[in-house]
Amino acid sequence: MSLDRTLFSDVSRVFVIVCSRAVTSPFSLNDMPGSAGRMDLVCRFIAQSIFISHGVRKDSAAIAILKGKPDPPKAILVKGSEVRYMAPDERNVGGIIRKALSVDLKSAGWNAEWKRSTPGVYVAKRGLEEVLSELEQSGFDVYYLREDGKDIRNIRFGKKLAFVLGDHIGLSEEDERIAEAHAKEIISLSPVSLQADQCVVITHYELDRLAAEVR
Amino acid sequence: MSLDRTLFSDVSRVFVIVCSRAVTSPFSLNDMPGSAGRMDLVCRFIAQSIFISHGVRKDSAAIAILKGKPDPPKAILVKGSEVRYMAPDERNVGGIIRKALSVDLKSAGWNAEWKRSTPGVYVAKRGLEEVLSELEQSGFDVYYLREDGKDIRNIRFGKKLAFVLGDHIGLSEEDERIAEAHAKEIISLSPVSLQADQCVVITHYELDRLAAEVR
Repeated sequence: MSLDRTLFSDVSRVFVIVCSRAVTSPFSLNDMPGSAGRMDLVCRFIAQSIFISHGVRKDSAAIAILKGKPDPPKAILVKGSEVRYMAPDERNVGGIIRKALSVDLKSAGWNAEWKRSTPGVYVAKRGLEEVLSELEQSGFDVYYLREDGKDIRNIRFGKKLAFVLGDHIGLSEEDERIAEAHAKEIISLSPVSLQADQCVVITHYELDRLAAEVR
Repeated sequence: MSLDRTLFSDVSRVFVIVCSRAVTSPFSLNDMPGSAGRMDLVCRFIAQSIFISHGVRKDSAAIAILKGKPDPPKAILVKGSEVRYMAPDERNVGGIIRKALSVDLKSAGWNAEWKRSTPGVYVAKRGLEEVLSELEQSGFDVYYLREDGKDIRNIRFGKKLAFVLGDHIGLSEEDERIAEAHAKEIISLSPVSLQADQCVVITHYELDRLAAEVR
């Protein structure tokens, strides 16, 4: 199976979250925290990965690996460079995820090409191992964000960066092993235990300061 | 008129946003970005002011000054120490704001005591001038977050801190003068222009590092 190697060529920051219970079929936008398995958290994670004031980060992307019923896992990729008609509110992002979850993946099968759902939004049958392998093959250094890691302010970063995060439940033992195996480094951000979307905001912030040399 | 001086006694960080178009009467939770005047932004601002992973910041509060139709301005105060039954998703926070906007303020009048709506949530007829004066009288140093300010990493902070932010439109000329007049310092965060809720996350983060002495 050959993957599209150009998909990540314009991405330099990608955030990857594993969502333990987020559902893998279309859901109600009126109950994202409940019956959709904390889909609200997934929406905030995606929004914070790509939105800034009055625009999107063209060099950034988000990948959410959904592991809830009925058809886990499914990976959803959102690229800032290609996204259209997306607003940062949860209901809007939720609608876009819902549409992606209605794409037929059965014919393509496990770890096939990403299927485009709406502009900048792709979906595929992939778990964490497949996602991180693909990112490494596309030139990314993988970092795992965990509270006991090395302070982000003491890390020397390269050019293409992938950050793995857990949700409110955290990674499963198997995903933990996968993240550790792929991680160039385990990184911590804050002395306070934060939500996934807050970790994304802070990582962007530290990288923005580095890029502007105002650290 | 005497205000309750104990209201802010357990608060050491408060974020104040001026929302140019957010409506001042109950609204539809299904159209917060549209007919409710970017109420989605207000929800995210409040959530990021008080929520962390699996809990709330007991020492933090958010004040949103809503300036949209039909009855501007109204100020909504949310205190982390008192809040119950609040989840960080926009729809939940929106429901709590909507309830606060149904409280009758006509009998109390301009700049009267805050009226309690639900646990930890208060509403009052106040504009930016009244809110900042009250915070100063309660012992807060006021800071204005603006992109041309002094780098937050070069500020020496006291114990009780109030941060003023604009929304996606920014402060009106009048509110700008008020913010400048009250501000001990104008502070900038990032080389990138960010959304209000992202500024809250980053301010908390910098203060958390200072508190833990890992700056």
